Amino acid sequence: MYFCCRRDRLEKDFAELAQFGSLENGGFTRVAYSLEDLAARGWLQEKMEDAGLQVVVDAVGNIRGQRPGQEDLPPVMLGSHLDTVPEGGNYDGSVGILAALEIIRVLNDREQVTKRPIEVVNFSAEESSRFGVATIGSKALTGKLDLKTLKSLTDSDGFTLYDTLRESGYHPENIQYSSLSRENVHAFLELHIEQGPVLEEKECPIGLVSSIAAPTRFNVVISGRSDHSGNTPMAMRKDALVGASELVLGVENIATEAAGKDTVATVGYLKVSPGVMNVVPGRVELGIDIRDISCSDKNKAVKAVTELMTQIAAKRGLDISWKKLCDDTPVELSKRIMTSLETVAKQNNMSFIKMPSGAGHDAMNMASITDVGMIFVPSVGGVSHNIKEYSRMEDICIGAKLLLDATVRLAEE
Amino acid sequence: MYFCCRRDRLEKDFAELAQFGSLENGGFTRVAYSLEDLAARGWLQEKMEDAGLQVVVDAVGNIRGQRPGQEDLPPVMLGSHLDTVPEGGNYDGSVGILAALEIIRVLNDREQVTKRPIEVVNFSAEESSRFGVATIGSKALTGKLDLKTLKSLTDSDGFTLYDTLRESGYHPENIQYSSLSRENVHAFLELHIEQGPVLEEKECPIGLVSSIAAPTRFNVVISGRSDHSGNTPMAMRKDALVGASELVLGVENIATEAAGKDTVATVGYLKVSPGVMNVVPGRVELGIDIRDISCSDKNKAVKAVTELMTQIAAKRGLDISWKKLCDDTPVELSKRIMTSLETVAKQNNMSFIKMPSGAGHDAMNMASITDVGMIFVPSVGGVSHNIKEYSRMEDICIGAKLLLDATVRLAEE
Repeated sequence: MYFCCRRDRLEKDFAELAQFGSLENGGFTRVAYSLEDLAARGWLQEKMEDAGLQVVVDAVGNIRGQRPGQEDLPPVMLGSHLDTVPEGGNYDGSVGILAALEIIRVLNDREQVTKRPIEVVNFSAEESSRFGVATIGSKALTGKLDLKTLKSLTDSDGFTLYDTLRESGYHPENIQYSSLSRENVHAFLELHIEQGPVLEEKECPIGLVSSIAAPTRFNVVISGRSDHSGNTPMAMRKDALVGASELVLGVENIATEAAGKDTVATVGYLKVSPGVMNVVPGRVELGIDIRDISCSDKNKAVKAVTELMTQIAAKRGLDISWKKLCDDTPVELSKRIMTSLETVAKQNNMSFIKMPSGAGHDAMNMASITDVGMIFVPSVGGVSHNIKEYSRMEDICIGAKLLLDATVRLAEE
Repeated sequence: MYFCCRRDRLEKDFAELAQFGSLENGGFTRVAYSLEDLAARGWLQEKMEDAGLQVVVDAVGNIRGQRPGQEDLPPVMLGSHLDTVPEGGNYDGSVGILAALEIIRVLNDREQVTKRPIEVVNFSAEESSRFGVATIGSKALTGKLDLKTLKSLTDSDGFTLYDTLRESGYHPENIQYSSLSRENVHAFLELHIEQGPVLEEKECPIGLVSSIAAPTRFNVVISGRSDHSGNTPMAMRKDALVGASELVLGVENIATEAAGKDTVATVGYLKVSPGVMNVVPGRVELGIDIRDISCSDKNKAVKAVTELMTQIAAKRGLDISWKKLCDDTPVELSKRIMTSLETVAKQNNMSFIKMPSGAGHDAMNMASITDVGMIFVPSVGGVSHNIKEYSRMEDICIGAKLLLDATVRLAEE
C-alpha cells in the first residue's frame, strides 16, 4: 500500500484547530501569546507528541518537534505559525504547520526513516499585529533577537514582549540559548497560502517562491493642537488628523506612482486623540508599512515618505516624529532548493509558477542560516488577513504532497 | 458697605471644583455622568443649598436651585454646565455656574430680595463627547428630548443615555415632567468663556453674544475590504482609510474654500478596523461636525460634504453610509436682553464687543422658550477643549459683575 497525505486527517486537524479563537463572524483571532494562541499551541504540542516527535519549547515559545533520522545529521526543518492577525482566517500559517504534521504521520505510516532527522517548528508571533514586529519566533531562532529587544518591544496595552513571554510560561532570559546557526540546519521548507490573487488568476495550484519582499515600518506621531471645533477658525487650526490624512494619501501615491512597480505601502493603524466629535484632533499616531522585493525601489519609497512627513509638518505647523520599527532586506531564496522543488513538482505532474512573495514569512529569517524553499497554495479571491480568508483543501493537499516529496528528497541528501 | 462679587470666594470655588477629574497633565476630564462629573454635581448641589437655594434635580440630572423673589413670578434663570470634554479644562461651563452661585451669595450678603425669583441651573451633558449629541440637559429642559431618544443614544461602550441616567440615580422615565415652557421663565443669562481668540486679540474683557452657530453632525461608516498589506497590489485594494483621508481633507477644503466665511468643519474622531500594521484597513468610522451662524452657508457645506462622500465611494469602490446625528438651526439671541446688557456694561464702564458664538451652548436651547443673553470672557490663546484652556480671574470677575447687575435688572422687571 502506498501511503500519502490523507485529506481526512488534514481536515480533522483544521476542524480541531478551529476551536481556538474562532469568532461569530466566521473569522479567527489568535493573536500572539493570547489565551487563544496559547491554547492552540498546547493542542499542537500534544498532536506533535502523538506523532512521535521529540518536542522542545524555546525561550520565545517556538515549538520544535524532531523525528530522528538514520544518522545524527543537521535536520530538514519544516515550519510556519499558528498565530493570526485580529479577525483573520484559519489558513495563514496553519496550512504549513498542519501539512508538516501530516508529513510526519505519513512517514510513520510508511515506517520510513530518512537519513536526516526532520523537524517541525511552530514559530511564535509571526504576525506583527501585537508587538509591531513580525516573525519574532524565527528571528529568535536565527539569532536576530536579544534580551534588550524583548524588553523594549511593547504591545498597545504597554506590556513588554519579555513580560508577555514570562506570563505565558516561557523563559525569555534564555534567549541566547535559542538560536541556531548554519551547521545546525540542512534546509528549511515552508508551505503557506499565497495571500494574494496571482495563483487563482492563473488557475495554478502551486507557486514556488523565488524571493520574499521585506518591510520597512514606521511608527509616526503627529502633534498639533486640540481646539474647540466650533470656535476655532479654519485658518488658526493645527489639526493633526488633516496632516495624517495628507500622509495617508501621500503614502498611497508614492507606492502607486513614485516607487517601483511591485512597491506596496499601507497605513494600517491610525489613532486619534482626543478623538471626540467636538474637538479638533491634537494628536495622531499611525503605522506605515512599505514593502518591495527590490531593495532600491523600497529605499526610494522610504525616502519619499520621510520627505513627505517633513513637508507636511512644515506646511501645517505640526510636529511629526517617527521611529523606524524595522528595515528588513528583501531575501532571495535558494536556487538549489528551487531546482529540487521544480523537479519534484514535475515528477508529480503538478503545474506551478515561480513567483515573488509580497508578504514576509519566517522563511525569510531562516534563509540567513540555511537553504530555504517556499511553496504557495492559492488564496480564494486573493483574500487574507480577513475573516473571509479561505484556501481549498484540494489545493492544500497538492501543496502538502509537494512538501512531502521535497522533504524526503532533502532528508536523504 | 457695598457688596459685590468676591474674587476670593470665586477662586476658592474653582480650587474646590478642581478636585473633580483633574489630570496629571494639568487638564480635566469630567465627561457627562462619569464618576468625576457626578462627584462635581454632588459638590455643587451642597454649595447651592449652603447658599440657601431650593434645589431640585430633574429626569436628566439638571440641578436647579431657586432663590425666591418678592413675588411668585417666572424667574430669571442663570446657567451653564460642569461637564468637560476628555482632557479639557476647568473653565468651559464652570465659569457660568460658579459666577451664578457667587451672585446668589452677593444678594444674600446684601439681604436683597429681587422682585422675581432667580434660578441657577447646572445643565447635564452639555458636551457631546460621550453621546455624540450636545446640550442634553437644556434640550430636556426645553422639551426637545423624549424617552425614545434617551433610549436610542449610546456612548462608545454601547451604554444608552437612558441606562446611564438610571445608573446615575436619575429618573429618565419622568422626562416629560422635566420641561419648561415660555410662561415658566422670564429670561435666561449665561456667562461663558469665549473658547476662541477674538476677545484676546481685541484686548476686550467682554463679548456680548448676538447669535450662536449650530452644528450639523454626521456619523460616517466607510467599508472597504481588509487585505494583507504585503500581498495585495495597490490597484486591487479597497482601503477604507485612504477613502476616509480623502474625506477628511475634503471636509477641511469645503469649510475653508467652498462654504461661507464663518463655516468651520471638523472630523473629530476616526476609528480604523482592524487597525493593525499589516492589514489594509477594511472599515473606518468617523464623525463630521459642521457649524455656521448662517443657515444657508451651513447647508451649502453639508450638501458639498454629502456629495463628496458619494464621489469617494464611487471612485474607490467603497461603501460609505452616514447618519445625520443632528441638524440644528443657528440661533439669534434676544435684542431686548442685548440692549439691557449693553446698558449695564456702559454703566460699569466696561469695554465690550458684540460677537457671534461659533460654539453651541445651552443658551441656544433656552432661546426657544425665553429671552436669552450671553456674555463671553476671554480665553487665553483662544484655546479651549484642551488641557491648556485658561481664563484669567480678573476677566471672570468682570463678567460676573456684568452678570450680577444684568440679573438684578431683569429680576426687577
